[in-house]
Amino acid sequence: MKNTDVLVIGGSAAGMVVSLTGKSAYPDKKFTMIKKQKDVMVPCGIPYIFGTLESSQQNIMPVDTMMEKSGVESVIGEVVSIDTEGKSVKLADGDTINYKKLVMATGSVPVMPGWLKGGDKANVFTIPKDKIYLDEMKSRLDGCRRVAVIGAGFIGVEFSDELAKTGHEVVLIEKLPHILALAFDVELSDRIVQILNERGVNIRTGAGVTEITGRDRVEGVKLDNGEILDVDAVILSMGYKPNSKLAGESGIYVDESGFIAVDEYMRTHVSDVFAVGDCAQKRDFVTRRRVPTMLASTACAEARIAGMNLFQLETVKTFSGTIAIYATAVGKTGFGTAGLTEAAARAENIDVLTGMFEGVDRHPGTLPKTQKQVVKLIAARNSGVIIGGEVIGGLSAGELTNVIGMIIQNRMTVNSLLISQIGTHPMLTSSPAAYPLIKAAEIIDRKMRTR
Amino acid sequence: MKNTDVLVIGGSAAGMVVSLTGKSAYPDKKFTMIKKQKDVMVPCGIPYIFGTLESSQQNIMPVDTMMEKSGVESVIGEVVSIDTEGKSVKLADGDTINYKKLVMATGSVPVMPGWLKGGDKANVFTIPKDKIYLDEMKSRLDGCRRVAVIGAGFIGVEFSDELAKTGHEVVLIEKLPHILALAFDVELSDRIVQILNERGVNIRTGAGVTEITGRDRVEGVKLDNGEILDVDAVILSMGYKPNSKLAGESGIYVDESGFIAVDEYMRTHVSDVFAVGDCAQKRDFVTRRRVPTMLASTACAEARIAGMNLFQLETVKTFSGTIAIYATAVGKTGFGTAGLTEAAARAENIDVLTGMFEGVDRHPGTLPKTQKQVVKLIAARNSGVIIGGEVIGGLSAGELTNVIGMIIQNRMTVNSLLISQIGTHPMLTSSPAAYPLIKAAEIIDRKMRTR
Repeated sequence: MKNTDVLVIGGSAAGMVVSLTGKSAYPDKKFTMIKKQKDVMVPCGIPYIFGTLESSQQNIMPVDTMMEKSGVESVIGEVVSIDTEGKSVKLADGDTINYKKLVMATGSVPVMPGWLKGGDKANVFTIPKDKIYLDEMKSRLDGCRRVAVIGAGFIGVEFSDELAKTGHEVVLIEKLPHILALAFDVELSDRIVQILNERGVNIRTGAGVTEITGRDRVEGVKLDNGEILDVDAVILSMGYKPNSKLAGESGIYVDESGFIAVDEYMRTHVSDVFAVGDCAQKRDFVTRRRVPTMLASTACAEARIAGMNLFQLETVKTFSGTIAIYATAVGKTGFGTAGLTEAAARAENIDVLTGMFEGVDRHPGTLPKTQKQVVKLIAARNSGVIIGGEVIGGLSAGELTNVIGMIIQNRMTVNSLLISQIGTHPMLTSSPAAYPLIKAAEIIDRKMRTR
Repeated sequence: MKNTDVLVIGGSAAGMVVSLTGKSAYPDKKFTMIKKQKDVMVPCGIPYIFGTLESSQQNIMPVDTMMEKSGVESVIGEVVSIDTEGKSVKLADGDTINYKKLVMATGSVPVMPGWLKGGDKANVFTIPKDKIYLDEMKSRLDGCRRVAVIGAGFIGVEFSDELAKTGHEVVLIEKLPHILALAFDVELSDRIVQILNERGVNIRTGAGVTEITGRDRVEGVKLDNGEILDVDAVILSMGYKPNSKLAGESGIYVDESGFIAVDEYMRTHVSDVFAVGDCAQKRDFVTRRRVPTMLASTACAEARIAGMNLFQLETVKTFSGTIAIYATAVGKTGFGTAGLTEAAARAENIDVLTGMFEGVDRHPGTLPKTQKQVVKLIAARNSGVIIGGEVIGGLSAGELTNVIGMIIQNRMTVNSLLISQIGTHPMLTSSPAAYPLIKAAEIIDRKMRTR
């Protein structure tokens, strides 16, 4: 029997950040964080274990170091039940921990679709955030030449590129007509297809997989047009589902999509129980609809907010909905997205105007390593409020996506962006006279004036 | 005798952007831009002519191409007088142009201090935005081994690094106790000193230059402690002054610092005459004081605003004061600044709290090419409004500085930054759990709560 003030279940990004922020806000309280394994993977770093990094050992989040430094107790164990009335949890080893505040940061698990035949064969992999699984997977992929990656979201794209880099023959299969369809509009995702092709990734879009063929181990994937592609391994990157079983069994309300219901302070429906990260319910910042967007960066924002509100409500510190800011890199090209795509906005019946501008990421463009930089902005027609943006460029595209994130977050209009100041430098950004973000806003402005 | 609707005097960044934006806003009007030379330099690219780029030919702004594409007439000539009553200008070749609206975009010229003895010797250079001068300067510097750069602002730092790169022995001399003193607080500028030293730039701070010695050509610089440094050439990077002589002579009101007085629409005191860029008066966004900050990026923001307001006031499109967002790079390290430094804020009697956090620009930090990333934020104590930020990091530091610029522009508070979402990616940004910008805000938040 142990006692703590705040018990955090889960030791990945969300669990770590809620512990750190909470301890910083309430230094007199005792914080205890429980994780299942000693070594926690940097979640977004997982694809890079398979190419850029030497091994999973290089992708370990320094959780224990940070916990120790900030005075949070870190425990290895598995919670098997929660008594929300008595405010205690039971661990798999029989131990009990009493808490005053509980935070669910149990994350997510890969989707393994029930309808997919042959998903149980050897060399079929999902991508859990589990070092032991990933180490085994890496050593088995080393012996495979042809790999099919199913699902062309960010993780599928990153895995494909990393595996191609290490000499595999990769086919990336996507059921939708375009890759990265939730993140980019077609005119941008088409450019990413081209980049991936140049790097040796074969792409099949509009192709559903019906079956993984082979005796005991993978020999091929069968597409819905009947075609069979010969491969030695299959990676399923078809998304994640919230890991909310423990919450549900413990009477913490879980919504129809499996997410733990939370309010803007990240409180669940049960007193003194919070939820953050992939397991917690999300709403889109603009549409206010529930969305399944799972991002470590969003998880950390939620965790900071929960941490600050644990013992008293800091009324201005609320989570105002997921903006879905994310970026990735393929070689020396970075691409990122924030907010809604044009397609997503139109599907929600938002009347939008868009502007797209292509420039370069250095100036003059004669400088070494200059790359193309294209920015697309999406604004609501009547208000001019910017609700989305997409970038393809050099490696500064990640932070440029964050500039767009700040614009969306502050509900800036096209007008306010047009009078904004930006800083520029030959080696670091595009030219001040042709900064694609501003030029894209000018295009929307023209459309607004000429309607 | 010619007639035009809008006459823009000056063909650098500000002149070009006011022409483009104006023509886009008022497509039926005739726009004419006058520049003195055919080839206009990319202003911020000038230092790179002396190292990274092969020649000034690679640093030409595609002004004429852009003017032609957008239907703006580009004329080479020099305006010698303006009749603001009769609304016409006289050119050096005797020609007259009548206008309806006039925009002064006459830029700035290098400061050549009158008190400096020996400034007229051969191999003493300033840095005008003049291709012919710069070509001559480059060919003469090629024959010099030891170069003194006097004045350690951004341009002095950039020149020093470029000249060191091309095998010169460089000493960078600054009168103030620290380099880049207007842009960075000491704890950050000290790191930049270290980087410059590693790249072979010798730095002398707290050292005023009293005389340039030598017979007809430079042989040394004499410091105010009497010491003489032997050098073959001297570059004066001691700032610029507004080029407002023509305006002053034409009865357009010029303030006591030599800037053409303007309002928030960039209108001068004379009807139908606007001024933008280095020649136009500036106020600091936070302190509201007049400031002499000259940046191509600010010039472009002013130019966009003037362009949109030429024939009718778009009341929301106003310039709200200079934020001074700028960045540079030395090798693979980028550094940038936005808003006020702590020192500048304190000098203005602003009660501030600061937070500084050092992380890395990729995650995990084991990834190749990971660099340290340090962010310092400055916030007003009572309101928590963020008024400044400084960054040193990898090459994404330029766009990260723009994230800070957006934060300042939107008058975001520490609280609103703490609940902000940022996007992250292993190759492109620091970790979401230790994003230095957010961590710096957390440090300020702690200070606000424990006062």
